[in-house]
Amino acid sequence: MSLSVSILATGSEILDGRVVDTNSNFVAQILSDRGIPLKRILTVDDNLPELLSGLSYLHEIADVIITIGGLGPTADDLTRDMSAAYVGVPLVEFPEAKQHLIDFYAARKRTLDPSNLRQALLPEGAEMIPNPCGTAPGFIVTRPDRKIVCSLSGVPREFKAMFNDTVLPLLLSRASGSKEIIREGFRLFGLPESVVGKEVVALGFPDSIGVSYRASFPEVHLVVKGTDPSEVAACADKIRTSPSLSPFIFTEDINQTMSALISSLLRERGFSIAAAESCTAGLFSAALAALPGSSDILRGGIVAYSNEVKVSQLGVPAELIAKEGAVSAAVAKAMASGCRERLGATLGVGITGIAGPGGGTPEKPVGTFFVAVATDKDVLVKGCLFVNERSFVQRYAVHAAMELVRRVLVCNTLGTPFPSEMVK
Amino acid sequence: MSLSVSILATGSEILDGRVVDTNSNFVAQILSDRGIPLKRILTVDDNLPELLSGLSYLHEIADVIITIGGLGPTADDLTRDMSAAYVGVPLVEFPEAKQHLIDFYAARKRTLDPSNLRQALLPEGAEMIPNPCGTAPGFIVTRPDRKIVCSLSGVPREFKAMFNDTVLPLLLSRASGSKEIIREGFRLFGLPESVVGKEVVALGFPDSIGVSYRASFPEVHLVVKGTDPSEVAACADKIRTSPSLSPFIFTEDINQTMSALISSLLRERGFSIAAAESCTAGLFSAALAALPGSSDILRGGIVAYSNEVKVSQLGVPAELIAKEGAVSAAVAKAMASGCRERLGATLGVGITGIAGPGGGTPEKPVGTFFVAVATDKDVLVKGCLFVNERSFVQRYAVHAAMELVRRVLVCNTLGTPFPSEMVK
Repeated sequence: MSLSVSILATGSEILDGRVVDTNSNFVAQILSDRGIPLKRILTVDDNLPELLSGLSYLHEIADVIITIGGLGPTADDLTRDMSAAYVGVPLVEFPEAKQHLIDFYAARKRTLDPSNLRQALLPEGAEMIPNPCGTAPGFIVTRPDRKIVCSLSGVPREFKAMFNDTVLPLLLSRASGSKEIIREGFRLFGLPESVVGKEVVALGFPDSIGVSYRASFPEVHLVVKGTDPSEVAACADKIRTSPSLSPFIFTEDINQTMSALISSLLRERGFSIAAAESCTAGLFSAALAALPGSSDILRGGIVAYSNEVKVSQLGVPAELIAKEGAVSAAVAKAMASGCRERLGATLGVGITGIAGPGGGTPEKPVGTFFVAVATDKDVLVKGCLFVNERSFVQRYAVHAAMELVRRVLVCNTLGTPFPSEMVK
Repeated sequence: MSLSVSILATGSEILDGRVVDTNSNFVAQILSDRGIPLKRILTVDDNLPELLSGLSYLHEIADVIITIGGLGPTADDLTRDMSAAYVGVPLVEFPEAKQHLIDFYAARKRTLDPSNLRQALLPEGAEMIPNPCGTAPGFIVTRPDRKIVCSLSGVPREFKAMFNDTVLPLLLSRASGSKEIIREGFRLFGLPESVVGKEVVALGFPDSIGVSYRASFPEVHLVVKGTDPSEVAACADKIRTSPSLSPFIFTEDINQTMSALISSLLRERGFSIAAAESCTAGLFSAALAALPGSSDILRGGIVAYSNEVKVSQLGVPAELIAKEGAVSAAVAKAMASGCRERLGATLGVGITGIAGPGGGTPEKPVGTFFVAVATDKDVLVKGCLFVNERSFVQRYAVHAAMELVRRVLVCNTLGTPFPSEMVK
């Protein structure tokens, strides 16, 4: 059975620019992966006639409407009233919603203001959607014509939990009966989205296989899906063994970030790491420290932005900088070794480059950078060129350094090709 | 004259979740600041009947529709066809649009594919909107009923330039005749948006003054606007002298970031800076290095994530860490001094804290951090408590350290109160 969905996002805070509606993008990604068409996203102000006209417009087009926001306790939170009016029922107090509010406030030792009890009023006959992270429950109402409205909190953490726990299972059961969709995912680093798209087309998958790919800078996330497990597995294998795609696949867990992967590889081996960063100025260390519990693998780092700091804190010979330039394979290697040694880590990382917009030369244009990894045996280095704006060059260089760490840990070889490797 | 606006965002890449529509938020912020109501944001797939039904729906509600995207050269770029059909005219080749395409490709030494010339076809009688950063021009069409459609490229850099250069002046001329709107803006750090809102209400501004405030974590941006310059100036003065707001205002330039402010203050004085970071792990240095040309003020930094690195690279006495704890005012001060001295900077910064989710104690809960600034004369320190998720604690601590640097540079005093200062 085919099923289509639209989104009604409510709230003046979107229309006056105070918040970006990221919830819709979250839904769009999931529905796309599941093959359920999202027909419209409509944002409407907190105003009852406008909300109702928005619902009517969307139901001409889709079977299910997901409404976002407007479930708070204040007078401009009108989603409960909207849905009740839409299906023609009164609002009634739901005892389990009321109990949830009482328990929620008690657990936090906060006083429940009587106005908060508005959040326990839901349209008569609605199915309540529990809110595991906040006060306001959501709910689902169904019209006599079987069209459905699912109303969820607009707080992103609450929205995601409510969508995943209740709405997605409902959509999946309605969308495809009992046929389960099998998915395999890949994260790639080093190819543009357009190239991944072309390569996937060239692999010639059958029509029964859905493919989606999505840029998440500097990565591309690729998912194949279908209902026949062996067919999905065969297509995933084609991707895994494609000479143009496979060198750029760094994980087959679509939810695993590069920094989480590196961290778990280091942790499994009982290794520690320390990074000497010039053009990325701390972003490598910060990416690892963004994860809880990173202190067991991250020793620390040296932000060697000036040449003096490269010399004094990392022991890079001043003559080497004078001879090769601060942005060079030799200096990246010396930074990695010096950092490893001085900070007492299993692995040392060195990153040096020209993030721009100034500082480029004909031999070393903006976007040139070198990443190096020092182990107890060796120092490995790669020179790369990624021409882009400053912040993108910095983020790309951090990823390239992590990819080099990954190859050292997993493959014990640099492999080839390496993302954005410079032709020597 | 009152004027209302709606947005029609086109494109399967929004509806399948590959991109987040940030252009609408950009427009929403500007219109809100200018007092022009944005009534709807509607996203529709690249499909001519659906696009036309979207336009009709929006024009029941607003005078001006801004369409985003669909101006590329491929078959699913339908905005030109949509607008021509909407006003009932054919597409014709605009010579200036064709010349722009030829020049654009020639300047980049790229070959102009004949399919690209589709981008020179615009609705007959349209007003062309030049695209200073890309190939596809935009255009404005007007219906006999004076309703307007402005069509712009969806590439954010192109969209912003075209909106600012052509569409905004048009909207302003239509919206308020010749009355110029005067604005004064403030950036605050250390107060939640809701508190700023309450304090502003308490100041009791006249109805002729518009006030908008918007959270941009960890800052709040506050703008007052009106048509009478002396009235706006008087209201801005009330904000500037409000005892509850003024301690948290760090700039009166609404476009100036905290890191840009610190950088320019350091540069004016010929000072350099170096940061020793524990819980923020490089984010302070990276924030300064995000700005081009930061090498003249940023010496570098030490990411002292482990205690061993605090001792070996910064000279923090191991006994001090044992006695006071790694997260303490004394260690933050020692980190700031050690970093200043070892890296040879005018100012040294120290940041140490518990970002969580683990590591908290009853005396030092998650969210506790200390920031210190060392000068040639003194070391100043503040202890703060900001209870939130890990990444928010880290970003807040970076801002608190920058605010401390700012106070040292501008006020030569720590001032009081300091954002999220701990009660001793």
